[in-house]
Amino acid sequence: MTDLPTMLDFAALRALYAAGASPRDVIDAVAARMDAGDPAAFINKASKAAMLADVEALLARAPNPNTLPLWGLPFAVKDNIDVAGLPTTAGCPAFAYTPTADAEVVKRLKAAGAIVIGKTNLDQFATGLNGTRSPYGAPRSVFDAAYVSGGSSSGSAVAVASGIAAFALGTDTAGSGRVPAAFNNIVGVKPSPGRVPATGLVPACRSIDVITVFGASVADAVAVRAVMEGYDAADAYSRHAAHIALPAKLRLGVPAASEREFFGNAAYETLYDAAIVRAAELGAEIVEFDYVPFRKAAELLYLGPWVAERLAAVETFHAANADAMDPTVRKIVEGAIGMTAVDAFRGQYALEAYRQAAAAEWAKVDALLLPTSPDIQTIDAMLADPIALNARFGRYTNFANFFGCAAIAVPAGFTPAGLPFGVTLVGPRDTDAALAPFAAALHAAAGCGMGIATEATPPVVPATPEDRIPIVVVGAHLTGMPLNHELTNLDARLVRTAKTAPDYRLFALAGTVPPKPGLVREPGFDGPGLAVEVWSLDPAGFGRFINGIPQPLGIGKLKLDDGSLVSGFVCEPAALEGAIEVTSFGGWRAYVASKAKAAAAS
Amino acid sequence: MTDLPTMLDFAALRALYAAGASPRDVIDAVAARMDAGDPAAFINKASKAAMLADVEALLARAPNPNTLPLWGLPFAVKDNIDVAGLPTTAGCPAFAYTPTADAEVVKRLKAAGAIVIGKTNLDQFATGLNGTRSPYGAPRSVFDAAYVSGGSSSGSAVAVASGIAAFALGTDTAGSGRVPAAFNNIVGVKPSPGRVPATGLVPACRSIDVITVFGASVADAVAVRAVMEGYDAADAYSRHAAHIALPAKLRLGVPAASEREFFGNAAYETLYDAAIVRAAELGAEIVEFDYVPFRKAAELLYLGPWVAERLAAVETFHAANADAMDPTVRKIVEGAIGMTAVDAFRGQYALEAYRQAAAAEWAKVDALLLPTSPDIQTIDAMLADPIALNARFGRYTNFANFFGCAAIAVPAGFTPAGLPFGVTLVGPRDTDAALAPFAAALHAAAGCGMGIATEATPPVVPATPEDRIPIVVVGAHLTGMPLNHELTNLDARLVRTAKTAPDYRLFALAGTVPPKPGLVREPGFDGPGLAVEVWSLDPAGFGRFINGIPQPLGIGKLKLDDGSLVSGFVCEPAALEGAIEVTSFGGWRAYVASKAKAAAAS
Repeated sequence: MTDLPTMLDFAALRALYAAGASPRDVIDAVAARMDAGDPAAFINKASKAAMLADVEALLARAPNPNTLPLWGLPFAVKDNIDVAGLPTTAGCPAFAYTPTADAEVVKRLKAAGAIVIGKTNLDQFATGLNGTRSPYGAPRSVFDAAYVSGGSSSGSAVAVASGIAAFALGTDTAGSGRVPAAFNNIVGVKPSPGRVPATGLVPACRSIDVITVFGASVADAVAVRAVMEGYDAADAYSRHAAHIALPAKLRLGVPAASEREFFGNAAYETLYDAAIVRAAELGAEIVEFDYVPFRKAAELLYLGPWVAERLAAVETFHAANADAMDPTVRKIVEGAIGMTAVDAFRGQYALEAYRQAAAAEWAKVDALLLPTSPDIQTIDAMLADPIALNARFGRYTNFANFFGCAAIAVPAGFTPAGLPFGVTLVGPRDTDAALAPFAAALHAAAGCGMGIATEATPPVVPATPEDRIPIVVVGAHLTGMPLNHELTNLDARLVRTAKTAPDYRLFALAGTVPPKPGLVREPGFDGPGLAVEVWSLDPAGFGRFINGIPQPLGIGKLKLDDGSLVSGFVCEPAALEGAIEVTSFGGWRAYVASKAKAAAAS
Repeated sequence: MTDLPTMLDFAALRALYAAGASPRDVIDAVAARMDAGDPAAFINKASKAAMLADVEALLARAPNPNTLPLWGLPFAVKDNIDVAGLPTTAGCPAFAYTPTADAEVVKRLKAAGAIVIGKTNLDQFATGLNGTRSPYGAPRSVFDAAYVSGGSSSGSAVAVASGIAAFALGTDTAGSGRVPAAFNNIVGVKPSPGRVPATGLVPACRSIDVITVFGASVADAVAVRAVMEGYDAADAYSRHAAHIALPAKLRLGVPAASEREFFGNAAYETLYDAAIVRAAELGAEIVEFDYVPFRKAAELLYLGPWVAERLAAVETFHAANADAMDPTVRKIVEGAIGMTAVDAFRGQYALEAYRQAAAAEWAKVDALLLPTSPDIQTIDAMLADPIALNARFGRYTNFANFFGCAAIAVPAGFTPAGLPFGVTLVGPRDTDAALAPFAAALHAAAGCGMGIATEATPPVVPATPEDRIPIVVVGAHLTGMPLNHELTNLDARLVRTAKTAPDYRLFALAGTVPPKPGLVREPGFDGPGLAVEVWSLDPAGFGRFINGIPQPLGIGKLKLDDGSLVSGFVCEPAALEGAIEVTSFGGWRAYVASKAKAAAAS
């Protein structure tokens, strides 16, 4: 049998495959781990025959290893998402049905080469953040079996954290794709609502449900998100989603002291403070913001009319089978009985008001850095006080889908007692990809590994280069010169000062107002190199700037003294008529200064 | 007393002011018209003393005529929008209160120099599209007193159409800012939801209520919209709204035959067909689309849970004063009693499904051209069948706010019986400004004047120049040449062929791959002028294109033979080393052809 790595992170599995391992053997080993793992993690495992049939089909269409984005990667599916041929229970045996079609995301993941290994346990109907609300048993944190795994995507998180699955699908309405990541030292990627199709999902609150990914690392989980996302006409909430960029230096919001609540969990509070310090060390600017409108929106999720969505999702079932439901889940769902349509709209008005108040806070920050959960509890404690203790876990998560946010939950160290803690980066809608590089860096900086491999180093996610175009300015556009405002009006940024390659001559052009130089390349000329500035603009600003340049100047490519070719000012041959060479000054600024000095002296 | 023009369109009033008329005298004359007009149009008129005090305040801060955007323009306000010091009745005397602050839009309009003349009648609580549901009487179409004015913004439309107000505010949930425009031969501008603040508005369906403008012309009404719009933190539904452009040649959607319903009003059907012909003559491409998902969404407004918003808006009042309500309005509002929160969310799911289906139709068109109302009715008929006949009016309007659309209703001619008909251009969210030029052209082409001035010519609204930058290409980027794809990949469009001014020489540069020319300006040279092409790109595409240009070429300004200076290819002086002059060919294409011919012959 193939010797599996401790964690089935993508790099490890791909290396195994590149070295000649067969997915058949990997699936054999995965099946063994599944059988030996937390008995509450899976509700239904795929049969070995079914998994091997999937492997054969994969090998038939893509025989060479790693030739599809998720080639041969075993994954688990939360049991409220349809996989053809396996029952969907949603954590409620009486509700179970066996779908004949895969959920849209499962279809896309299979097409990318991934292999379904089974359906994972959850808080019934995805109602809960703790993992104990299931007749299939309570999965445990992989670090301490006395403690909850987090929920509702309990089994999926445990499957990844214990090295059974390379990744797993969760869902997230209140925080179900993030809290279990925190309690198991793994990453939870929660896409912006509408990016990833929900076709084939048993709804919790259909208007804000999101299918999520658990992975060992940010790199792994975002690679899966990228495969899953994209418009689906069959999902009424699916959107054509853009990618919104974030600045290279993030302004990260952290709640002001009055809104930091850890319910007495001092170890978590200390770990949160340490995560903030690491974020600052990684270059983020830490900005305190007012969490109140976020908290108030969060409170609406269970105290407002949105519980009626949970009732809407199971109304027929509930009418006939209320006794078959988990008593806590039933109590929550039944909270919607008697809520009126007027209540529903009033709840939306309240939410819009909080969203509007939150917008003022978003203006101060690019993303938020929050504790994923401010507390963790033992299974015994949770069963003794199932609603109040559960609510604590959602304090920093419940608002995110209401506000359309993207979020990535990453590990952030361990308490002295050995319990994992996590933090979450939350960004505005469709910053999913933009959040990833910093999230990966923050994960790595925590030094707590991935899942049970606590010594492992998670991979980086390279930052997408900013979509800006550099431009070399030589004369009247230099900082402090008469036309510099033409750059700054277009939000140009000064990148650096530089020198041209030696083969340039500088001329003071005749009759230009304000006075302007012309930079002329003369191959073979060995001059001093001329002082210039490199600025950058976004493409439209660059286009507008250039369209404003008058004769006889233009924008071509300039060679700098490091050999790079950058867009910059050139001049037409005709411009040199009557021009005076000023190369010896070493740059336009020095020439202008010398003229000013001469004028003052005369 | 100043002799007022028949219609108080802005051009007429501004001309009057420019010629020396005082706003004091205009207000005097307006007051007289108000007193002589439809007695049901106004619920409360501003006192002459109050109006003159406003005029004095205006003259004190802006003494010169027409120095503010709406200087001295008298306007009426629908009586569900607060004006400080005048009662807000919402068409229900028992509901009335006297606000101490102006609604945000009224504040902005006053700041721009406009003068409030009074509060206009409406279907009670803005619930209706016909204008008969008010204890203050039923305003009449200004063209036939037997017919309804349309509603709910009944009095506002009549005030503008009869030359009492230069413009008037309406509101629009189902179509209340459009239907009355159609029934009175004026323009109704319905902004995209969230563009214009609703602070100070008595809600109908708060999540989709929009404050609108009635004007004599599109030009007038959009000028008012521009003053009103802009973010308001006090309104939870207010947005930072962009301006979305539309192409110069519009693809205009018209319902397929199976969805054209005029309820037997053949005269209206004929007028609609004629409007489509005019739209095509104005250059639009007419495209049939499937109206079904739009109609189904429209039907949700009164048959779905959104009536609960109407109850939410007046719940306390209704609980104590149901008997004081208009019986039809009361019946509609009470339809919400017993609707559950589950119903409310189910309604939203249905709406999202229709929106998703409609998205496929939007992909085929840039905007829709719809009948504003497919029918008109007498007041007597309406009172006899108040709900069913009212519902007809909303067949082509009710969906628009659900789908976030912008809409402009314009006059479209008269029936043989002399009743006005209107059509509405509906565009995607935030195309408000982009719709205006075509809407104005369509209004003018109808030849039916403005309000009661049926011979008047409405002003045009100039099209905003497309935000594209022209670029002159000379060589390898010409149509059919090896680098032309660099333009087309960036969505560049060929604008025209052209010739340079005579003072340019063309050189075949040495060692370029593919072969490239260099265009060199030599002041005084009297050459043939060189054949070039003018393309256009959006600013970002222009920026990206230029950033891809290698040495020794660049982009400067080229002079064309019409004397214009356009961005285009220039070359560095150093490039001419070893180049061959090819000016005599008259252009790069002719030179390349001659080379190919020579090669074939050899």
